[in-house]
Amino acid sequence: MPDESGKFDRIALIGLGLIGSSIAWAAKRAGLAGHIVGAARSEQTRKISQRLGFVDSVAATPSEAVKNADLVILCAPVGTYGALAQEIQGSLKQGAIVTDVGSVKTAVVRDIGPFVPEGVHFIPAHPVAGTEFSGPESGFAELFDNRWCILTPPPGADRGAVDRLTRFWQRCGSNVDFMTPEHHDLVLAVVSHLPHLIAYNMVGTAADLEEVTQTEVIKYSASGFRDSTRIAASDPTMWRDIFLNNREAVLEMLGRFSENISALQRAIRWGDGDALFDAFSRTRAIRKQIIEAGQDTAEPDFGRAARKTPPGDKIS
Amino acid sequence: MPDESGKFDRIALIGLGLIGSSIAWAAKRAGLAGHIVGAARSEQTRKISQRLGFVDSVAATPSEAVKNADLVILCAPVGTYGALAQEIQGSLKQGAIVTDVGSVKTAVVRDIGPFVPEGVHFIPAHPVAGTEFSGPESGFAELFDNRWCILTPPPGADRGAVDRLTRFWQRCGSNVDFMTPEHHDLVLAVVSHLPHLIAYNMVGTAADLEEVTQTEVIKYSASGFRDSTRIAASDPTMWRDIFLNNREAVLEMLGRFSENISALQRAIRWGDGDALFDAFSRTRAIRKQIIEAGQDTAEPDFGRAARKTPPGDKIS
Repeated sequence: MPDESGKFDRIALIGLGLIGSSIAWAAKRAGLAGHIVGAARSEQTRKISQRLGFVDSVAATPSEAVKNADLVILCAPVGTYGALAQEIQGSLKQGAIVTDVGSVKTAVVRDIGPFVPEGVHFIPAHPVAGTEFSGPESGFAELFDNRWCILTPPPGADRGAVDRLTRFWQRCGSNVDFMTPEHHDLVLAVVSHLPHLIAYNMVGTAADLEEVTQTEVIKYSASGFRDSTRIAASDPTMWRDIFLNNREAVLEMLGRFSENISALQRAIRWGDGDALFDAFSRTRAIRKQIIEAGQDTAEPDFGRAARKTPPGDKIS
Repeated sequence: MPDESGKFDRIALIGLGLIGSSIAWAAKRAGLAGHIVGAARSEQTRKISQRLGFVDSVAATPSEAVKNADLVILCAPVGTYGALAQEIQGSLKQGAIVTDVGSVKTAVVRDIGPFVPEGVHFIPAHPVAGTEFSGPESGFAELFDNRWCILTPPPGADRGAVDRLTRFWQRCGSNVDFMTPEHHDLVLAVVSHLPHLIAYNMVGTAADLEEVTQTEVIKYSASGFRDSTRIAASDPTMWRDIFLNNREAVLEMLGRFSENISALQRAIRWGDGDALFDAFSRTRAIRKQIIEAGQDTAEPDFGRAARKTPPGDKIS
């Protein structure tokens, strides 16, 4: 008998970009959806999605899409959630689960929460996965495999609904974790939002230089800059909304970051080699733990396109 | 008839870490060395190097290694170059080429220059390639393939010697470029030194948090932080020496970086979404150019270990 857990008769995806299309592919792979209906503002996105076949039908408006849906997933930029929730509230089916994929969670609770009707289960979620690509053609079924999906169910959330959504994400390939929205936002500020801000800033700073040509930046990017450009190529709308909606945690992390960079700056200015060596030594251990936790491969990445022979993991 | 250009009868490598061992493998692959002798302070490194077979013989001291060598390559951390140059000056063969692999160039000219005897050709070089691994077991022949090697020959350098070294690096797989030491140091501060400092600082800042556990940082690293930990796992001694020896350019870049980050910080604090969107949009174009220049693949890297189906390049 097939595994019916985490399955929904009708799933509505509001937004058909990288995450929306990847959820559709992952749900199809695992046989989790009787029918997937997708809503997108742009007609072109709807057409592409139908052509690629990851939705069974499309709807021109979010309220049309959510009618009779058992699972509604908001997959649009976080800044649109309040308006979306207001728009769909009258069309939601009793007993439906409403969830999202936003990279911030306190703002999502603030924006969506007030519009969720009695008898509808609101369970915010954040699949911690992505690429620097966007749009309906960028999705793929394996995006969530072995990645984490963080659920932030509100106090008193329906246990059965939380369990169903948990199984859904597990069968999409994810590991599922639970947090409060506040803790989620702090953790993500550290591991995701600050790194993105820094990467954007580093690439922007390089682009402004008069003495160094863009050609030179591009030619020699393999030496450390390249990974930043990858991150800094992420979707600008999505990231604008993240920073506007996780302000406190990001500003706190940015303050700490700036204090520490000042200490390194001072060490460089005064030639304090011991301080630099100590700072550079302690970070190696964290890298080793990440590899052991299976969140990356040990294979060096600095010359990926050119490499043929992977050496062993030598960090110690 | 085999291509004899860039070939040397006897090559001495002073230092047998990632770069030294990779040069040896690359030179062997291309048949560029009659004999490779390697010097390393640690007996264990010498033993491993002989066992792996990328050197034909080993020497316990640099001066022993350079005797009769036609090409001497300093592959130790930049901070050791002055002492090394002083030590080997009496043992260098007339007509030999002395070069290095240091990531800074004005300091190398300052430290090595005064000790180069008449009749020996000193041509500083920087192969812009590496991984986050170190030690004699981390090298591989393909490290320099399709990467850049920057030569900074002093004014009046012997043309024949420059040509020979150019051919050597080309046959090791590199593209060769020429710069003044000063310009080299500024370019590298932008594309390499600043990104490394930032990555070290970001990982260190995360490690200091009280509210977020190290386990959480490691679990959710895939969301942007992971690339930083990769860079921040690089060799601490090498990087200490780089920052001590490229102070001016790094401090200049750091100043610009901090100014710009303050502007982003202000935009976040005041909710200026347009400023954030503009800043995040202009960086995408640079990424696209890097992919076109062949310095990276378009394949997304955020879930590398888990991915199976590469999507197309959708950046626009």
